[in-house]
Amino acid sequence: MTSPLTGVVNVGADMFADAVEAQAVPVERVDWRPPMAGTEADLAAVATDPRRDAANRRAVEAMLGVTATLVDVAPASEVLGLEPGQFLHAGPPIEWSRASGPLRGALMGGAALEGLVDDPEDAVALFEDGGSVTLEPCHHRSAVGPMAGVVTPSMWMFVLEDAETGRRTHCSLNEGLGKVLRYGAYGPDVLERLRWMSAVLGPLLRAGVRSADPVDVTGILTQMLQMGDEAHNRNRAGTLMLMRDLAPAMVTSGADASDVAAALRFIGGNDHFFLNLAMPACKLALDAARDIEGSTMVVAMARNGTDFGIQVSGTGDEWFTGPAQVADGLFLGDYGPDDANADIGDSAITETAGIGGFAMATAPAIVRLVGGTVPDALATTRRMHEITLAENPRWSVPVLEFQGTPTGIDVTRVCRTGILPQINTGMAGREAGVGQVGAGLVTPPAEIFPSALAALAARVPN
Amino acid sequence: MTSPLTGVVNVGADMFADAVEAQAVPVERVDWRPPMAGTEADLAAVATDPRRDAANRRAVEAMLGVTATLVDVAPASEVLGLEPGQFLHAGPPIEWSRASGPLRGALMGGAALEGLVDDPEDAVALFEDGGSVTLEPCHHRSAVGPMAGVVTPSMWMFVLEDAETGRRTHCSLNEGLGKVLRYGAYGPDVLERLRWMSAVLGPLLRAGVRSADPVDVTGILTQMLQMGDEAHNRNRAGTLMLMRDLAPAMVTSGADASDVAAALRFIGGNDHFFLNLAMPACKLALDAARDIEGSTMVVAMARNGTDFGIQVSGTGDEWFTGPAQVADGLFLGDYGPDDANADIGDSAITETAGIGGFAMATAPAIVRLVGGTVPDALATTRRMHEITLAENPRWSVPVLEFQGTPTGIDVTRVCRTGILPQINTGMAGREAGVGQVGAGLVTPPAEIFPSALAALAARVPN
Repeated sequence: MTSPLTGVVNVGADMFADAVEAQAVPVERVDWRPPMAGTEADLAAVATDPRRDAANRRAVEAMLGVTATLVDVAPASEVLGLEPGQFLHAGPPIEWSRASGPLRGALMGGAALEGLVDDPEDAVALFEDGGSVTLEPCHHRSAVGPMAGVVTPSMWMFVLEDAETGRRTHCSLNEGLGKVLRYGAYGPDVLERLRWMSAVLGPLLRAGVRSADPVDVTGILTQMLQMGDEAHNRNRAGTLMLMRDLAPAMVTSGADASDVAAALRFIGGNDHFFLNLAMPACKLALDAARDIEGSTMVVAMARNGTDFGIQVSGTGDEWFTGPAQVADGLFLGDYGPDDANADIGDSAITETAGIGGFAMATAPAIVRLVGGTVPDALATTRRMHEITLAENPRWSVPVLEFQGTPTGIDVTRVCRTGILPQINTGMAGREAGVGQVGAGLVTPPAEIFPSALAALAARVPN
Repeated sequence: MTSPLTGVVNVGADMFADAVEAQAVPVERVDWRPPMAGTEADLAAVATDPRRDAANRRAVEAMLGVTATLVDVAPASEVLGLEPGQFLHAGPPIEWSRASGPLRGALMGGAALEGLVDDPEDAVALFEDGGSVTLEPCHHRSAVGPMAGVVTPSMWMFVLEDAETGRRTHCSLNEGLGKVLRYGAYGPDVLERLRWMSAVLGPLLRAGVRSADPVDVTGILTQMLQMGDEAHNRNRAGTLMLMRDLAPAMVTSGADASDVAAALRFIGGNDHFFLNLAMPACKLALDAARDIEGSTMVVAMARNGTDFGIQVSGTGDEWFTGPAQVADGLFLGDYGPDDANADIGDSAITETAGIGGFAMATAPAIVRLVGGTVPDALATTRRMHEITLAENPRWSVPVLEFQGTPTGIDVTRVCRTGILPQINTGMAGREAGVGQVGAGLVTPPAEIFPSALAALAARVPN
């Protein structure tokens, strides 16, 4: 294609040779199928919907128009009106009887944290009886929660706001990794950490946030994607930028210096701290795209450890659910696949917004955490462009020559190509109390997309 | 090469197709020539040196064995014994009469900072006379300095130590970008900032460093390379990790909270702050490889704005110099190529150690600062493996499937291939007082490598 110039290396040719060489590696199976069985009629119906193109354009524009800023940190009782006995959780609605181990463990720990029981084990009876407690999805309260996603009234929440509309979303503070409540652990150390977070960390963050310039969470996400984070399972740079933005104001807040130092050590020692800002920033953007008649765009993907659910712009608040899958990945210590619970958490909101698993090309180091290979990571981002409506001009991937992240999952494209959204995720132990056992790669159950498509088809005007 | 399985996408095939497509882009000229003219006899002589292989192995091992930790921050008068009238500068030795504009500007500002003159302009006479002042390379005092690299007695220095040998290197504190002393600016704001750095920032950093755990600078470099920094012109993640490691101890140092907050804002607002730790960490590693008879490894590349010099392990302290080149890159505001001084600074110590321009593949976003394209950045790192002795197992590039950075420039390989080391760099204005005008890509003058080769050949035992 190019004629070699004497004495000049052709860089393109080098890359070509590398690609040829790469053919020698074993064929990778990726999750691809022809159009999903039985979707032909619904695909045809939705294709004739005269509202669809404009509706999807509106949905994309609304989503991309949101700039999320961190405007406050406050207890859930205050900002969500959460009352004693009310528990939020990740994913679509679920009852105790169907709840997985890690969700049960987190609820039990939450009940002890709120003083409803002294011993978390005693909370089992409380939840089985159900008379004095309620379970509700975070998503139904303008919130998101990673893993079990349990929120109780005394937990402090990040409050994010869209400057233009004033709409808000919320997320709890990240506890770190390992034995933590969101992974279903509820030992005394877990509860002690949560109490310190409510007594010291939350108020300090509030003081910082209220006196610092508003933290531009969307802008930090833009930078992170140029710093090896994909903002689901790598949030290192994001965490450090949050610390950079808040530390000076925390220092001059008048708080005890040793508390400030402890808070900075806690944040700096937890590479995932920023996840709990990335998630509500993604929800804030996606909420702007909700409830647009005719739009086939997914506005939420969420898992409660039993069910995986999606919500779609054109079908309102309806959840389309199927069984959550177990991730394929790498395990901590002696844990193995049999120890892992099915997929859990609202954190797939990052993939719904076009980052996380969708942006793995920009975070190739993540394969050391979630498994797979670097070429897989690059290929995954390229593949996700096949099922999305747009590229996000603010969130670009340098190594793909600054291409925007694949944004706005289209139910029709998923059904037409059979390509499922790629999620990367932490893995919780299946038994209550265990905590994290690994991290890996997972997809939604395929059948929820045809279900959503059928609902969209049923709403097409005659 | 692979037989497609029905209904299975071959990821390799996708990448193959992309590479084919990439062939359609214009051929990139890269700096490649046949073996450098006139080097045949010296290449043959060095090839017969029975000490060479073992010497280069020793040099590489010594370099890779160094772990740099930040152990102190203190004035240059204290840790370098620098006395009034003594000035350190970047690059090989030079006199005032041959000094470039930015070096002159920085020396004039330095003289005012030390109170030798009231007005920086008055320092011209002082340096022309030369009786009361001396100029000496940073490299001759176990130090390195970015850009002009001027160090005066009152400036505070980072002190890095190799835990195993106790050897130390030093570097001043980074002032930020734009109108700053190291780029040759010397206005009142420049001097005011430097005085605050000596009065407030330096002592605060010392308090932090002395009470925190030793900061593992080599380890931060390892992380940075997985976070989009190449540690010469991108040091964002490194700066934030330094802040993470020192902030808690600074907070509890007993210093005034508003000073601590100002220091954290200064560090957090200067993405290049960590450069002044990356540089002495690289020098510490390379110094371990000095003075090994028979070794053809480059142990320093440095520029004073007029001359580009290298030192080689097997030839002791001798500098091989040639004219510094003007970088090709991107300019700030209305500045253009005519405003740029020739290449200046000790910061090419990063490339000498295998990062900076040699690690651009891991920092593709840098092309927005220094110019070029993302494929160029990837190709540059691959090309540098052609002229280096080893891969650094600690410093790996995720997108190149975790290949170690190309490490240990071999004079013989440079002469044999004609491939010159790729440096990325800031550009100073050619007139004293201007400051930064841009950033770009540059190479050493080719002739210094045959000069070094000749000196190595002359030392081969008969």
